[in-house]
Amino acid sequence: MSYDPRPIGVFDSGIGGLTVLRELLKNFPEENFIYLGDTARLPYGSKSADTVRKYTEQNMNFLKNRDVKAIVVACNTASTQVYETEYEGLPVYNVIDPGSELAARITENNRVAVIATRATVKAETYTKKIHAHKPSIEVFSTACPLFVPLAEEGWHDDPITNLIAFRYLQGLKAHDVDTVVLACTHYPLLKTAIQKVFGNHVTLVDSGEAIAKQLAEDIKKERVHATDRSTDRLQICLTDSGAQFEKLALALVGDYTDQKIVFETVSVI
Amino acid sequence: MSYDPRPIGVFDSGIGGLTVLRELLKNFPEENFIYLGDTARLPYGSKSADTVRKYTEQNMNFLKNRDVKAIVVACNTASTQVYETEYEGLPVYNVIDPGSELAARITENNRVAVIATRATVKAETYTKKIHAHKPSIEVFSTACPLFVPLAEEGWHDDPITNLIAFRYLQGLKAHDVDTVVLACTHYPLLKTAIQKVFGNHVTLVDSGEAIAKQLAEDIKKERVHATDRSTDRLQICLTDSGAQFEKLALALVGDYTDQKIVFETVSVI
Repeated sequence: MSYDPRPIGVFDSGIGGLTVLRELLKNFPEENFIYLGDTARLPYGSKSADTVRKYTEQNMNFLKNRDVKAIVVACNTASTQVYETEYEGLPVYNVIDPGSELAARITENNRVAVIATRATVKAETYTKKIHAHKPSIEVFSTACPLFVPLAEEGWHDDPITNLIAFRYLQGLKAHDVDTVVLACTHYPLLKTAIQKVFGNHVTLVDSGEAIAKQLAEDIKKERVHATDRSTDRLQICLTDSGAQFEKLALALVGDYTDQKIVFETVSVI
Repeated sequence: MSYDPRPIGVFDSGIGGLTVLRELLKNFPEENFIYLGDTARLPYGSKSADTVRKYTEQNMNFLKNRDVKAIVVACNTASTQVYETEYEGLPVYNVIDPGSELAARITENNRVAVIATRATVKAETYTKKIHAHKPSIEVFSTACPLFVPLAEEGWHDDPITNLIAFRYLQGLKAHDVDTVVLACTHYPLLKTAIQKVFGNHVTLVDSGEAIAKQLAEDIKKERVHATDRSTDRLQICLTDSGAQFEKLALALVGDYTDQKIVFETVSVI
């Protein structure tokens, strides 16, 4: 068995991908990670497919130049524009494959909801991938554009968030789904409000958990080699500086690592 | 008296600046305009001062290359990073100067509220400029980060918007202000909800109206020369393509011009 001490690169348009990083830190406490948040150009969810693909490539090139051993696209909107499983020789993980696979596997009544940004809903990637697993599943998608700003505002368990969740999701609830894919990495922050609308008998699929399972399998298969030495720092690179993002980042992942979190403002262009 | 048929360039990070363009179209029906919305990088309100300045210069260069006769910075966050009144020989209008002048002039109890994005509040530009007019005015500022996504979602007159407005603004209301500056060009779209919180005895200052007054004075003084011939088209340039922005743009300015609105996807980098 050979080892690879290089970090795993994780990127998102902003802080949402930290919910994925959080799961990775929980599952792989020995691994090293470098996180990139493209905060200078967020959000991606309202942007066109071409623009999202361009930004995604720039982010992957940035991580490649930082000598990562694998790239995790921790942003659903970016993942809709990632068709490759390797980028310049590096294994690439998008958040859509494991989330759609998991949803297809666990639904019992074959009725699945996908909630996401406008761009992700428009791309229809989840519907196609869920159908690739099981064509008989009915997939209902809804865009929830206010969920990202609500998550960033920190109104996670809040009566206003509950009201907005109810407005966006009541139509889906009426479709009697038993599984809901949180198809935006910000949405796990609003889990409480979303669960309240659907009730506890409905399973919420969190892409962070799904991607951690996939990565664990690939480490077992040695597609990605585990590290044999941890560093003492977790690097968080942001394309825009901002105390608010740093504060949110610390709140999101601070409890999941003993490493020192080091922020760096970077350019990916 | 000499004439200048070149268009006036107006830019914003997205669609908010169309509330300014709308006022300009109302006040100067003969003039030609070209609008730039930097939709590929919106919003500016959560970004750092340096990044906002860089984007602003790129936008001004783009408009200069389109041979405009003046530039209107129809974005408050961008305006906090515009210190010049001329850019490469062209008159530049920011939205903050006329809005703060108007607020300082009309307040009777010398208590003014400024509501804006986080970046605009942090820059404290309004407070400084209002004090430059009248140092005795007490200025109270509050950031309302969800107002932009609410405006873009189209929930303009809506119970949820009323609740969010009440949460953000009740503290300001308690300060007994008689004048409220809508210091983000998106906010006039939420005028109804904002007025409901403060009551009808409070005056809302709309930067679009204020900038139209300033431009009218400068045309009278011939700092900017009026046109002697209108074209039949209103050019709206967006840095990202997107049917949703085009729909919103048509809804916002369609009724204010007889010109054909032509959309173009452009790069400003």
